[in-house]
Amino acid sequence: MSDRYRDAGVDLDAADETVQRIAGHVRSTYRPEVVGDIGGFGGMMAVPAGYEDPVLVSSTDGVGTKLKVAEGAGRFDTIGIDLVAMCVDDVAVHGADPLFFLDYVGVGRLLPAVVDQIVAGVAEGCRQAGFALVGGEVAEHGEGHTMDLAGFCVGVASRAALLTGTAVAAGDVLVGLASPGLRSNGYSLVRAVLGDRPDDPALVDELLRPSVIYSPRMAALRRAVAVHGFAHITGGGLPGNLSRVLPPGCDAVVQREAWPVPGIFGEIQRRGVIPDDEMARVFNLGIGMVAVVAPADADRAVEVLGDAYVVGEVVEGSGAVRLV
Amino acid sequence: MSDRYRDAGVDLDAADETVQRIAGHVRSTYRPEVVGDIGGFGGMMAVPAGYEDPVLVSSTDGVGTKLKVAEGAGRFDTIGIDLVAMCVDDVAVHGADPLFFLDYVGVGRLLPAVVDQIVAGVAEGCRQAGFALVGGEVAEHGEGHTMDLAGFCVGVASRAALLTGTAVAAGDVLVGLASPGLRSNGYSLVRAVLGDRPDDPALVDELLRPSVIYSPRMAALRRAVAVHGFAHITGGGLPGNLSRVLPPGCDAVVQREAWPVPGIFGEIQRRGVIPDDEMARVFNLGIGMVAVVAPADADRAVEVLGDAYVVGEVVEGSGAVRLV
Repeated sequence: MSDRYRDAGVDLDAADETVQRIAGHVRSTYRPEVVGDIGGFGGMMAVPAGYEDPVLVSSTDGVGTKLKVAEGAGRFDTIGIDLVAMCVDDVAVHGADPLFFLDYVGVGRLLPAVVDQIVAGVAEGCRQAGFALVGGEVAEHGEGHTMDLAGFCVGVASRAALLTGTAVAAGDVLVGLASPGLRSNGYSLVRAVLGDRPDDPALVDELLRPSVIYSPRMAALRRAVAVHGFAHITGGGLPGNLSRVLPPGCDAVVQREAWPVPGIFGEIQRRGVIPDDEMARVFNLGIGMVAVVAPADADRAVEVLGDAYVVGEVVEGSGAVRLV
Repeated sequence: MSDRYRDAGVDLDAADETVQRIAGHVRSTYRPEVVGDIGGFGGMMAVPAGYEDPVLVSSTDGVGTKLKVAEGAGRFDTIGIDLVAMCVDDVAVHGADPLFFLDYVGVGRLLPAVVDQIVAGVAEGCRQAGFALVGGEVAEHGEGHTMDLAGFCVGVASRAALLTGTAVAAGDVLVGLASPGLRSNGYSLVRAVLGDRPDDPALVDELLRPSVIYSPRMAALRRAVAVHGFAHITGGGLPGNLSRVLPPGCDAVVQREAWPVPGIFGEIQRRGVIPDDEMARVFNLGIGMVAVVAPADADRAVEVLGDAYVVGEVVEGSGAVRLV
């Protein structure tokens, strides 16, 4: 059956094996609100009770060329954590609680063991974030096609509790959540500087370090203090992302010395001879998420978040982000 | 700024141009429930009123190697419609109404004009289906990376109105909705048979024919009669997908002569010398969606749906799908 289809690059046996392998990972993420099981046309999850005028907050993202580092190393066990992190933290910035996640894995030739590792990581990320993994697609495109990953997630918030940046004001304090590594941004530059397949195993470990998933600590902070806004520090770095929560008439001033920059960033900068400005626009430099709070809440925020620093403040200005 | 990043394969100017180009397409899909605008970290949409114990139904899918046919032809204006069709109709089978859609476009080198065409098609599909396009990601991976598309969508249904296949019973009638073309399945086999880049412009038109989006007619049918189930005929064909809505102890019997099979399927079969069984497992053969209804509702279903046929019935059995 389907020999011609296999000859054409689609292996239905490999697809069946993949479904068998990943079923346990998927079910390990289920929450009571999930309706049905693997095998439906769509994934189903009830809107949890307790949200007034619920607003669904959604995001899609990939892991960029960090995936190519994983491919080079033949290690796919944590890239799924990065995929969840990139998606969930874009939803959590709006004050939403995680509901569900779906993943898309596009491959040339389907290797069930590789997809197994990828989905195991996605499931680990979902458990950390509190997502049910309710759906996914593994698409085999045939030889010559390069692998890609895309994630998609939905969270929910009461409309009145949505964070849309409008609460940020001059005088607010910027509290940065530490990132020990690159998360999933800047890898095209990293690979240009360090090579597609670095030899040093410690360096490969560092480059594949899974992204911290901030959403649980962000939710804890929302319960503890009135958060004015969050900025997820992805592509564009602190300047490109803090600017997204600044109201008109405000600048953000970030003190570069306020937190310890992990060594990997210095190593990339040194080996690539990259100017400071470009480093700040491509990498998170050790701050992967920023919470904006009133000055009176800053100490409490650092305490609740843990592994966080007061990194700057919001001042009157014209929408600029200044690293000083 | 960011010269090194551009050298490394990430063109931020092209990214900015892309955002400018697609903003109008995106906004053309907005519904009143959308909160905010382009530029937030996540997309936001309120859960519409009128659903009791609302359940969110979600799906992710791609367009398979139909995208490679589009690339070969240099025509990207309708592949986004296929992307929406593949996703929305997996959600509509569960009786859900469309809410929102997100797209992921992974490319090697970012060509804003190509992404513009793709997203224009996605927006056209969203308007047909009734989705708000609330988010998306365009990821540039550098030379050597092959393009891929992934779509994600969410719909909503009252819990009591969910279709999960459990209402299907022996005696029910199968009503098939016509598909004039391949939709987005079987293209790896098509390309093996007809070549990666067919010369005949009429054949290319046929291969790129956009998928019918069935969800609006499915919603109309749900309003007119008590639908017992739907099966979206994608990979696996009628046998592989009808089996997904059969309860234990039932077979589906499909009359092959009950509908006119569009000529493209015969041409592929003839040129590829493909057995009937394999044709039926890879292609939709002209039926892209099946509604399962009580016998008394069959005529009304055909009338409400339009371009539809009674194609078979559910009988006592053991879970088999028999094409006779």
